[in-house]
Amino acid sequence: MDALDLQVDGFLFGAVKSGIRGKDRLDLALISCTAPATAAAVFTTSQVKAAPVLLGMERIKSGQVQAVLVNSGIANACTGKEGMAKARGAAASAALALGISEELIQVSSTGVIGQQLDMRCFEHLPRLVAGLGPDRAMDVARAIMTTDTVPKTAIRTLLIDGKPVKIMGMCKGAGMIMPNMATMLSYIMTNAAVSAEVLQGILQRSVNQSFNHITVDGDTSTNDTVLFLASGKAKNARIDDPKSAEAALLQESVNELTRDLALQIVADGEGATKLVTIKVEGANDDAEAEMAARTIANSPLVKTAFFGQDANWGRIIAALGRSGITFDQTTVDISFDTAKIVGNGLWLGTAAEQAATEILRQKSFTVVVSLHQGRGTCSIYTCDLSIDYVKINADYRS
Amino acid sequence: MDALDLQVDGFLFGAVKSGIRGKDRLDLALISCTAPATAAAVFTTSQVKAAPVLLGMERIKSGQVQAVLVNSGIANACTGKEGMAKARGAAASAALALGISEELIQVSSTGVIGQQLDMRCFEHLPRLVAGLGPDRAMDVARAIMTTDTVPKTAIRTLLIDGKPVKIMGMCKGAGMIMPNMATMLSYIMTNAAVSAEVLQGILQRSVNQSFNHITVDGDTSTNDTVLFLASGKAKNARIDDPKSAEAALLQESVNELTRDLALQIVADGEGATKLVTIKVEGANDDAEAEMAARTIANSPLVKTAFFGQDANWGRIIAALGRSGITFDQTTVDISFDTAKIVGNGLWLGTAAEQAATEILRQKSFTVVVSLHQGRGTCSIYTCDLSIDYVKINADYRS
Repeated sequence: MDALDLQVDGFLFGAVKSGIRGKDRLDLALISCTAPATAAAVFTTSQVKAAPVLLGMERIKSGQVQAVLVNSGIANACTGKEGMAKARGAAASAALALGISEELIQVSSTGVIGQQLDMRCFEHLPRLVAGLGPDRAMDVARAIMTTDTVPKTAIRTLLIDGKPVKIMGMCKGAGMIMPNMATMLSYIMTNAAVSAEVLQGILQRSVNQSFNHITVDGDTSTNDTVLFLASGKAKNARIDDPKSAEAALLQESVNELTRDLALQIVADGEGATKLVTIKVEGANDDAEAEMAARTIANSPLVKTAFFGQDANWGRIIAALGRSGITFDQTTVDISFDTAKIVGNGLWLGTAAEQAATEILRQKSFTVVVSLHQGRGTCSIYTCDLSIDYVKINADYRS
Repeated sequence: MDALDLQVDGFLFGAVKSGIRGKDRLDLALISCTAPATAAAVFTTSQVKAAPVLLGMERIKSGQVQAVLVNSGIANACTGKEGMAKARGAAASAALALGISEELIQVSSTGVIGQQLDMRCFEHLPRLVAGLGPDRAMDVARAIMTTDTVPKTAIRTLLIDGKPVKIMGMCKGAGMIMPNMATMLSYIMTNAAVSAEVLQGILQRSVNQSFNHITVDGDTSTNDTVLFLASGKAKNARIDDPKSAEAALLQESVNELTRDLALQIVADGEGATKLVTIKVEGANDDAEAEMAARTIANSPLVKTAFFGQDANWGRIIAALGRSGITFDQTTVDISFDTAKIVGNGLWLGTAAEQAATEILRQKSFTVVVSLHQGRGTCSIYTCDLSIDYVKINADYRS
């Protein structure tokens, strides 16, 4: 993607090699707004929260953010009072370098749990600030990568109130939690004018249907953070009503953008060779459909079968059986894309299996499980479990 | 183990090569009692139940069983009305060959889901019956193996009412569910005299603390079955009171025996190189301790770290954080056996980590997570997630 594409009016970006991850790796990044931006955030639901998450949850209450400082290499999680002091210190250093209020800074960290940050990395902040530019978003996307193999960005454009509105997002995360690398970070920037309340609602709904519907290994990190910043530079009439047509328009674009980013995470899942959508339909309700889809999507037996390109529907129906939902095993249909392999709970034979096996050779496909119980439906996005997943995660620290 | 050790008064055993799994593999086994035995059973909780499970649930209500017919190779799960008719047909064939009532026969199957049994395999029943003997239990233990690499048996002896009582058990299962091989089968035989109600209570409690506390990959099979048969040949005064000292004595021995069998399953987990006990203590209650222990025990990131012999406590605390229980992250201690690596939520340094890493080199160890919240405790037995696990499960059917 062309660097120019990622520009959003009101935002500057930059990244430096601060030494946390050695000499040759971008590991400290800054997103800066020319004025305080309206801000919304979603943080990890884990009971174990990293220091920057605890600090961020407190500071987001104001609904305003002017800069985001992110480091990779060290998660600053399980670091106690010292870690909390360091998160505050990092924000203070950034505030000083930018000449803005400390309260307007959000800090994120991703990397090894339990280790303390060496504060000397923040001595690079003046240099980082000096190098900020509107066209350097890709550097930030690169600096926040851990076991990711590619930087992940997406843009959407739309007209609101006759004004061109742009939304740009970036994220990192190749497992729901990396080895020791605490995972999912995403930053979304727009030039739209929108109230903090509307922004928070849009973000929460979009996260629920995107980042919360993907799974690489079923794990959740101590550091997960999604931030959404709006500069207002588009000069549209500020969106204050969550039920307005403009809010709905923005919601739709943010939904698309976050789903795009989420699928990039799954496709880049640790060791992943397949991107698989698990779609459960005809459940008693959406909650049961979600339970079933998640159980199938997280089953190591199902995921190793995908890796083996084996249309192993027995593992899918077994995962379904233990998912905790109620259904009639004699009305279950299972298809790979449009290739039906199970009808009314029964195998449809060798020819059907061969057609399904062909689908599994693709890089991306959908498993459709139809329960014929009610109208509940849910899609979860997952990847396969490969030999490389085990190698990456067994060897990561050694 | 010496074949003689597995004898239990009142029981005969046998197995043959019936052709389901090719010419050279024992795949059809029979356990026969010289008279109807008092019987108890625990079946899979999956919503998807194999035909022999559905039949078994119905027949066990009588509290009496005189023979158990088991085949490996085909699970007879997701086989519809035809599968149900075949399960009944198998029982009828065994009844005819043994000259006993069909209602007294339990049938078990383990193998590929969705395929129909070829009824010709049961033409070997007269030969199987002719070959029954009190000293052939090991043949049964071998015939029920699927991806198991070793047969699994255990015995306990005790005195009840002055009479020598013996309990012998066998099981198979190298994943909670195999590839397509539906898993956990266990048969426990005793010569004790005991009522069906007491037997059922003892079995249920022992299963809860043994087979229900192990996990290889978090999956549950469509065919899981544990049967407990009591011949009464020990001639002790029949145990009718579940609160009697004799019932307690029997419970204790059955607990030990089932835990022994359960640990054999984990140690023989698909691709497993480590047997790991996850012990959570100091939780708010036992239910929360169990949620936490299960989440840690099933985390692919934790299990790959065990395979890598990496004292990766960050993954353990991250799994704890997302387990859904409530605790204070600043009071968590984590040890590998007695080597403490985390105190009050903080890493204890390089020397502590080295000591913990030494422990991980062992074939078997315990991870102790102390929450200091309350008195809740739970141990879950698991294994590592190895490259071989992926190989076995990706390649199984191809």
